[in-house]
Amino acid sequence: MGDKKFVEKITSRDVDFAKWYTDVVREAKLADYTSVKGCIAIEPNGYALWEKIQSIMDQKFKELGHVNVQLPLLIPESLFNKEKELIEGFAPELIWVTEVGDKKFDERFAIRSTSETLFCDYYKKHISSYKDLPKLYNQWCNVFRYEKETRPFLRSREFLWQEGHTVHATAEEAIKETEQMMEVYRSFNHDYLAIPSITGKKTEKEKFAGAEFTLTNEDLMYNGVCLQDGTSHYFGQKFSKAYDVKFTNKDNKEEYAYYTTWGKTTRAIAAIIMVHADDRGLVLPPKIAPKQIVIIPIGESEEVNNLCKKYKKELNNAGITTYIDETDKSPGFKFAEAEVNGIPLRIEVGKRDLEKGLITMTRRDTLEKLEFVKDINITEEVTKLLDTIQNDMYKKALERQKSLTFEAHNMEDMKNILNTQPGFIHAMWCGNKECEDKIKEIKGCKSRCIVEEKAIDDKCVCCGKEAKHHVIWGIQY
Amino acid sequence: MGDKKFVEKITSRDVDFAKWYTDVVREAKLADYTSVKGCIAIEPNGYALWEKIQSIMDQKFKELGHVNVQLPLLIPESLFNKEKELIEGFAPELIWVTEVGDKKFDERFAIRSTSETLFCDYYKKHISSYKDLPKLYNQWCNVFRYEKETRPFLRSREFLWQEGHTVHATAEEAIKETEQMMEVYRSFNHDYLAIPSITGKKTEKEKFAGAEFTLTNEDLMYNGVCLQDGTSHYFGQKFSKAYDVKFTNKDNKEEYAYYTTWGKTTRAIAAIIMVHADDRGLVLPPKIAPKQIVIIPIGESEEVNNLCKKYKKELNNAGITTYIDETDKSPGFKFAEAEVNGIPLRIEVGKRDLEKGLITMTRRDTLEKLEFVKDINITEEVTKLLDTIQNDMYKKALERQKSLTFEAHNMEDMKNILNTQPGFIHAMWCGNKECEDKIKEIKGCKSRCIVEEKAIDDKCVCCGKEAKHHVIWGIQY
Repeated sequence: MGDKKFVEKITSRDVDFAKWYTDVVREAKLADYTSVKGCIAIEPNGYALWEKIQSIMDQKFKELGHVNVQLPLLIPESLFNKEKELIEGFAPELIWVTEVGDKKFDERFAIRSTSETLFCDYYKKHISSYKDLPKLYNQWCNVFRYEKETRPFLRSREFLWQEGHTVHATAEEAIKETEQMMEVYRSFNHDYLAIPSITGKKTEKEKFAGAEFTLTNEDLMYNGVCLQDGTSHYFGQKFSKAYDVKFTNKDNKEEYAYYTTWGKTTRAIAAIIMVHADDRGLVLPPKIAPKQIVIIPIGESEEVNNLCKKYKKELNNAGITTYIDETDKSPGFKFAEAEVNGIPLRIEVGKRDLEKGLITMTRRDTLEKLEFVKDINITEEVTKLLDTIQNDMYKKALERQKSLTFEAHNMEDMKNILNTQPGFIHAMWCGNKECEDKIKEIKGCKSRCIVEEKAIDDKCVCCGKEAKHHVIWGIQY
Repeated sequence: MGDKKFVEKITSRDVDFAKWYTDVVREAKLADYTSVKGCIAIEPNGYALWEKIQSIMDQKFKELGHVNVQLPLLIPESLFNKEKELIEGFAPELIWVTEVGDKKFDERFAIRSTSETLFCDYYKKHISSYKDLPKLYNQWCNVFRYEKETRPFLRSREFLWQEGHTVHATAEEAIKETEQMMEVYRSFNHDYLAIPSITGKKTEKEKFAGAEFTLTNEDLMYNGVCLQDGTSHYFGQKFSKAYDVKFTNKDNKEEYAYYTTWGKTTRAIAAIIMVHADDRGLVLPPKIAPKQIVIIPIGESEEVNNLCKKYKKELNNAGITTYIDETDKSPGFKFAEAEVNGIPLRIEVGKRDLEKGLITMTRRDTLEKLEFVKDINITEEVTKLLDTIQNDMYKKALERQKSLTFEAHNMEDMKNILNTQPGFIHAMWCGNKECEDKIKEIKGCKSRCIVEEKAIDDKCVCCGKEAKHHVIWGIQY
């Protein structure tokens, strides 16, 4: 079997999850390491996935009235320093441009790690009246954070993202925007990535530097580790005051604008892998797969070739992205390659099967083989199957998430869970940072988010004092 | 008239072309200056134009088999230094990252000004056999070149572009790719931007640092100044040798790969402005306009509103991007705003005209007003008109280009032309750099490209010796 080749190169997920992950990234040709330490090359398969994510999210942003812009990559140090919490939050991760040719600049420039400073500086010049508001700007770009430990897509020094930056005339409207964009991220994960994420509010300790509050979208990976995958921040007037973003309100009085930002990154690709992939490689939900169908001809014959072409044409015309693997590799190799690349459905058109009037379709998610008569309404059947795959992948991920969701009522519970099998841990919390710090001592477990669910206890899981919040905890990437 | 407001803010094109240009950029809200010297903020109108350019070109690239990737922003100095001509060509414009937080790096990193180094470094690892070739990669990204004098879109320290990097098993195939991509740029300019550019080969002096040869797409601006707008380079095996990009060929022998690169930038937006815009602002060719139609209701009535909505729905369904200006500004202001933004066609639906059963459409390019009965087949008429506008804009630009195209047979001719009215100057050349240098002394006139047209003389325009090439000369941006 030709497929041995790929499978043997991928470590088993249950044996070494970290190694399995990087094996899948490499074998599915999503990304590779480069001569620039901590920075990856996003290869064609990985970038096509990002383009698909971009196109869906961008359309959604635009439907909600957002427009795209592009601000500079460099941020003058003096501008960055205007907002102290921001500079403190990011200082150790900032890299600095100091020279052109052989000459030193008078002032250093940071490579953007996030663009609040430049957006505020822009809005300052362009807003004078409530009539100019809201401004709903978004930017697709690269950002840089000097991470110590890196892993492709998961934590890279340079990564791609979108950063929305909006200013509003009232706090209510800005808060509504913050919540709306979190819902966009959540529903995108559910509807397209087939990932049943949870959302909630970050604690004071975990929120974005300088924000009034941060909403977060948290995914649970196959191994029970949590992944923050999309955040939405409400800044109130804090940054507007630091950067002097003022407008004349309806009462003809000067007021500082209300500001939000929200972002989602190429990390989403890490989430897709760690939720859905298996020991044979990537498994892509049909709605996000750049190539949804591969047709593999088996055996040389005019009938085989014609049927492959007919299927391809019909499916592509119906908007289902389909290709025929016409390389001179063996069928077994082609099967394995389609599997490692996560193509949701493969259609096998074989000379012998055709003599019986049959073709085979194989689902990537379950590896189930299904026989059909060759004169099938191919578009109808494939559409149904892709829907089924999409739904089944979501259900499977939800089952796994449920099986890795726990409840803790005291620190003993916490320790037992984290030492046995990490996951989403529901536990009540008094609201004090000291308790968060104590919980972190157990394997680095952190609060993921405060959720608005029914209390499961009246005491804090850590100190036993009165509980204020229902929190989900977990170990994070 | 409300339109005074915009018109008064735009300097006349024939009075001060440079000031007119920046006035149009500002009033059409394409871009603005930022606190980062030499770097612009591309505003929503400008970025929408870039997105449109991107989407059309990206589709064309993909039809030709190219795939997108993303390589790092930073280039280690040691890697850059492997190709001497490249580093010499770019050294003064390179900016360097030297520090993270407060710590100095052992080695400097250049911010990419172009990515040949990183692509070669990538290909080195990923190519071993002729079966791996060709690799047809493209990247959409930001690049940085420290220009001394900057102008929005025309010459900015940071700009956006696409850079294609392909490797091939034979010189023939690579040369074909270089030529093919130049034709993609040329036809894109002609078919979409309505710009009648010319293409040809750069002289040794003007070619890209390290290339075997460079093909270029040259536009002529309204004022007779030339703009290089898209280049395609053939490197032969030069870079492959510097970066050790080898493969085993069909004869089982080791060979260095044949390499091409090609790029087009946000400069295309400068070309659109300087070829088509006028004293009222931007004029967009319909095929590249993010918004093709504006409908302006005049006078409050249910009939007016319903007809506007009906038109909008029908046009959008037909794939013609249409919006209704429903703001509470005056009709005159709305007309002027649509004009400054370059919307190709505006439809005016007025209460009084409707009593006579009429509506008006106004072409942005000619400002011609056309009356139609209200029960017109709106999609059919608008489609026809947009085609006419697109074609007429091309013709007008071609007429202008022809009227600014000259012939020179000696240096006296050259001086007379350049001192009276610059443009494309056809003149024969002996092939010696000394003559190029002497011609440059006249107002900085440079060779634009060598064209394969009939000789217009047998002597060099400068030294009078035997002519080898038919060259187009001009003053450049």
